[in-house]
Amino acid sequence: MIIVLKPRITKRQENSVLREIRKLGYEPHVMRGVARTVVGAIGDEEKNPSLEKLTTWPQVESVTPIQSRFRLVSREAHPKNSTVKVGRHLIGGKKMQVMAGPCSVESEKQLMETAHAVRKAGATILRGGAFKPRTSPYEFQGLGEKGLKLLAKARDETGMPIITELLSQKHVDLVAEYADILQIGTRNAQNFQLLIAAARTGKPVLLKRGMSMRIEEWLLAGEYVLANENAGLMFCERGIRTFENYTRNTLDLSTIPAVKQESHCPIVIDPSQGCGRADLISSLCKGAVAMGADALLIEVHPNPAEAWSDGAQQITLDGFKKLMRELKPIIKAAGRS
Amino acid sequence: MIIVLKPRITKRQENSVLREIRKLGYEPHVMRGVARTVVGAIGDEEKNPSLEKLTTWPQVESVTPIQSRFRLVSREAHPKNSTVKVGRHLIGGKKMQVMAGPCSVESEKQLMETAHAVRKAGATILRGGAFKPRTSPYEFQGLGEKGLKLLAKARDETGMPIITELLSQKHVDLVAEYADILQIGTRNAQNFQLLIAAARTGKPVLLKRGMSMRIEEWLLAGEYVLANENAGLMFCERGIRTFENYTRNTLDLSTIPAVKQESHCPIVIDPSQGCGRADLISSLCKGAVAMGADALLIEVHPNPAEAWSDGAQQITLDGFKKLMRELKPIIKAAGRS
Amino acid sequence: MIIVLKPRITKRQENSVLREIRKLGYEPHVMRGVARTVVGAIGDEEKNPSLEKLTTWPQVESVTPIQSRFRLVSREAHPKNSTVKVGRHLIGGKKMQVMAGPCSVESEKQLMETAHAVRKAGATILRGGAFKPRTSPYEFQGLGEKGLKLLAKARDETGMPIITELLSQKHVDLVAEYADILQIGTRNAQNFQLLIAAARTGKPVLLKRGMSMRIEEWLLAGEYVLANENAGLMFCERGIRTFENYTRNTLDLSTIPAVKQESHCPIVIDPSQGCGRADLISSLCKGAVAMGADALLIEVHPNPAEAWSDGAQQITLDGFKKLMRELKPIIKAAGRS
Amino acid sequence: MIIVLKPRITKRQENSVLREIRKLGYEPHVMRGVARTVVGAIGDEEKNPSLEKLTTWPQVESVTPIQSRFRLVSREAHPKNSTVKVGRHLIGGKKMQVMAGPCSVESEKQLMETAHAVRKAGATILRGGAFKPRTSPYEFQGLGEKGLKLLAKARDETGMPIITELLSQKHVDLVAEYADILQIGTRNAQNFQLLIAAARTGKPVLLKRGMSMRIEEWLLAGEYVLANENAGLMFCERGIRTFENYTRNTLDLSTIPAVKQESHCPIVIDPSQGCGRADLISSLCKGAVAMGADALLIEVHPNPAEAWSDGAQQITLDGFKKLMRELKPIIKAAGRS
Repeated sequence: MIIVLKPRITKRQENSVLREIRKLGYEPHVMRGVARTVVGAIGDEEKNPSLEKLTTWPQVESVTPIQSRFRLVSREAHPKNSTVKVGRHLIGGKKMQVMAGPCSVESEKQLMETAHAVRKAGATILRGGAFKPRTSPYEFQGLGEKGLKLLAKARDETGMPIITELLSQKHVDLVAEYADILQIGTRNAQNFQLLIAAARTGKPVLLKRGMSMRIEEWLLAGEYVLANENAGLMFCERGIRTFENYTRNTLDLSTIPAVKQESHCPIVIDPSQGCGRADLISSLCKGAVAMGADALLIEVHPNPAEAWSDGAQQITLDGFKKLMRELKPIIKAAGRS
Repeated sequence: MIIVLKPRITKRQENSVLREIRKLGYEPHVMRGVARTVVGAIGDEEKNPSLEKLTTWPQVESVTPIQSRFRLVSREAHPKNSTVKVGRHLIGGKKMQVMAGPCSVESEKQLMETAHAVRKAGATILRGGAFKPRTSPYEFQGLGEKGLKLLAKARDETGMPIITELLSQKHVDLVAEYADILQIGTRNAQNFQLLIAAARTGKPVLLKRGMSMRIEEWLLAGEYVLANENAGLMFCERGIRTFENYTRNTLDLSTIPAVKQESHCPIVIDPSQGCGRADLISSLCKGAVAMGADALLIEVHPNPAEAWSDGAQQITLDGFKKLMRELKPIIKAAGRS
Repeated sequence: MIIVLKPRITKRQENSVLREIRKLGYEPHVMRGVARTVVGAIGDEEKNPSLEKLTTWPQVESVTPIQSRFRLVSREAHPKNSTVKVGRHLIGGKKMQVMAGPCSVESEKQLMETAHAVRKAGATILRGGAFKPRTSPYEFQGLGEKGLKLLAKARDETGMPIITELLSQKHVDLVAEYADILQIGTRNAQNFQLLIAAARTGKPVLLKRGMSMRIEEWLLAGEYVLANENAGLMFCERGIRTFENYTRNTLDLSTIPAVKQESHCPIVIDPSQGCGRADLISSLCKGAVAMGADALLIEVHPNPAEAWSDGAQQITLDGFKKLMRELKPIIKAAGRS
Repeated sequence: MIIVLKPRITKRQENSVLREIRKLGYEPHVMRGVARTVVGAIGDEEKNPSLEKLTTWPQVESVTPIQSRFRLVSREAHPKNSTVKVGRHLIGGKKMQVMAGPCSVESEKQLMETAHAVRKAGATILRGGAFKPRTSPYEFQGLGEKGLKLLAKARDETGMPIITELLSQKHVDLVAEYADILQIGTRNAQNFQLLIAAARTGKPVLLKRGMSMRIEEWLLAGEYVLANENAGLMFCERGIRTFENYTRNTLDLSTIPAVKQESHCPIVIDPSQGCGRADLISSLCKGAVAMGADALLIEVHPNPAEAWSDGAQQITLDGFKKLMRELKPIIKAAGRS
């Protein structure tokens, strides 16, 4: 760590800082600059406590850690891209994967109609919410286990693996019994107990970015999955919260090269949550594919105006078909299949 | 709800919108303005589905709900201030309450020393973390049940009720056995399953604001507590995430009059998380008191530089004593005792 | 406008609102709903004063305007895409334009070397700052007129039109004498006096998005250009300010479909300012092209480590050549040439 | 500056970094840590170019400056509080100053009525906009010189000095002729040419915080004033832009202790812009006073519903009188008069 001392402190004040640095397990290394004295604290930041607390001392101006805080998710730890196998599909490989389906599972008819349509148009994985986190307790909370059973039935009929959200530690066994991929939603992205429980099921985990999570914090949340011996981690960008209100969230597509640079895990883009407007989804998908996303997660509904949740951001079956057709040349240009 | 139609749509397109509005349970009421046609949809927004999904229709420009989405937390539902009783203390009454103690419980010595000192200086409730949510899995995660036992011991010795964080549905019974107030942290503020479980213990719940939660969403999260038959809800502002990096978060003190205006529940201010810097805490406490906060939640540590978590924002025992002395005239000027 | 009244107000209080609405030039239209009374105020919001001030009245809950506030920039006003002619190039047409060059003009050697290299690699317009807005008064402020002269010389040698920033009303004539496109920077995006002065030169204007401007505000700032009889307006997204610190700004690529939908003006993407990191630029350019951007604005320097400003986000001459090669298939897949 | 090198780079790559550091005027100082090699670059960061550009080199992980970038505004440069004299009033001294008046000057009647009322209630300085920066070109842009003349007349009648906004370099002489304090608005807070021109008039300058300015950037913008030999600089917090939409902006009251700590200049709080809602202003004023603000800037209008600009945030004459009465005990408790 790098400790910058305040100007004009006494020798005694400086020494007390050096003593504390040694006490906390580091070897101080003093550099006297033009305007400030800087102390390099040599030692393993992973093993020793952080020195950031020294900023409460009146003689210390700032403390900066040197080592990055994530390990297992980092590219340093695993220089090649890692891939996640789901059914016979590989996420993170040469083939672009498309996860599509309704925001919420509402009925057998709605789900089956959607599942068949998206598969025919080219989707490879079926999405659908059975348990829904809703801002208000008075909104539709999902069909629960009944929804999971419908998803399993749709998998049987179409051959598509299913991804669905896990939002309670109490549902871990139940959801893991049905799902092929466990989705951790934005509101639970730092619900570390849920992350640990999800990881321990051994099922692949798709970790959405929290709506105000910095990239570093997101990677660290992913660390909770890998550290619990589950290698099937995927990151999913779904928009961050900003001052803009034309879109529901601001989809941060720079996460595609950023996550690829810092980590070996696949990156998935969710344009539906990312903008909250059906009319922008096609363009965002094109951008995501061109930038190297490994998969897309798209909300599709036979009749969005009557959807039980998040209707404004779901596209129609025809809209999805058209989108898949338009994406083809971009997928090819991006070197994917 | 108010539906604004796009300009230059056909009569047929307009009619199909009116039909859908009726189908969803509202009575449409057409107003032809200078540049746009606006439809008022008369009906109970609490009972009928939202019309916001109509924005996916090409002939609709925007949809605006009219009714506020929260009920039980609203001032409309309960015009007088509500109060929460904890031991012999009343939060939300004339007396200003101060909750103080270490970020994490680290040892018996650290906790007892802090507890006695803060009580002597004027604190009325003891805070301390036994389970800690940490951004990295490699950071100290709290003493767990051992920490809860130490808190209970400190309560026995000092007579102060205790507040501690609940972060897992699995710990609900355990934490509720020891704590007098259950704290829901910022990362779990929209972990609705945890909110429901906390509410059902019957213990008072202090709900921190999520770091990117709008005030309306925070009130709606509180609705999950009241709707599960727990009247002991308190809101706690702890700073929101913004672009500013001088402070760790931006403490939004305008929540004090805002929550008081919209809701009847007490509002507590946490300046320690709110700025993340020990040197700003005294000033923020003064502001909070003058603005009408019902309680403060302050992190205090015998030696912040050696704290096991969040050292940079904890103040010393002497600092706390000085703070309490400085707050006195402001508390009086604010009409509190 | 739509005025929502508070519940439980008296008939007299309601009438005083209706009277004020009439006084301000609108015809009130009352709708009694289940929980609230809503008043539609029929009248031309462009000509009459806003009713938003009624929110200061105790009997009014909210006021919502109906008409969008921009006119000349809107697609309603001009349904087809507009194009901007610069030299023999058309921005907003089928051909993708690339503006490239150094952040600041530093010397004849640096500029000429860059200009020739970017032209050879495929750039069509030369960028370079002569007057630089710098956060600190102690940083390099640009070569001023000498820089403009060097740009003119580079135009003569390479045939590329030049774009350069205008940051003072005092420099309007001077900069307009040399530049082919006037760039208004992010810090001046709501410096309306400068916008008006720039518009009146008759030169094309590239309006960068302010770092905390909503899309609506950006379009309204553009309205200042069109309303001053200059049709050569281009919008340029350059990243917004958010809590993320991995990148310098968050490049909001959803502005491409958003601006295309709301406006007829071309949209340009600046990935260099947008992320502030040379290593992400290639990926962001690919996304921008696939999403339909009309042009790119890229910072290129012969030796970024020795650049006099913003070195961290400039790419090398070789890097630019490689980028242009990689963009080709995406440009083609996006239906551009 | 501190340069962190990437792990596993060759000796030759390391040497080329050290050579470049020397070339740019610093003496490198190598520290080999457990996971990384860190180079301290010893030299005057104020005189030498920044090394941040080295982050474009593949062997460099990060670069961190050590010296703060502001000088004349810093407390280091001037340990005591500075004060600004305006007429017979001192801003930054023991007496709390209150600047009050309408958002825009609309008519002689409106201004005189307001001026007399606020003076009687205790205001010491009169505010009023003659030139108004408006988001849309179709909104009222202020009375211009006529407004300035009315302000001068109000000063003659009431004895109160006047503060008014300067928004164009072209108006500098005109506005300086009438105003006692030049206000630089949030949209021009980084319009450095305007700041320089304002400073050179010699009149006191009140610099509002840009709506997405970090505190460091704000202080640096203030540096443009002091560096142009004008010691009459005041900072004014007026809310920052965040995701919250209950308030128009988020008033960041932590700037009071922050600016006091980093700088010697007075700090003024503008709660009217800060929240955009008349109903929260009283509470925010109380907080600001308790936290040590040197002055308040409050919008007051005889009839806010008919104001020509920003009606929703202006309080009535009676409201202002009541506010001044309520502030008294807090002003006293804060040790002010």
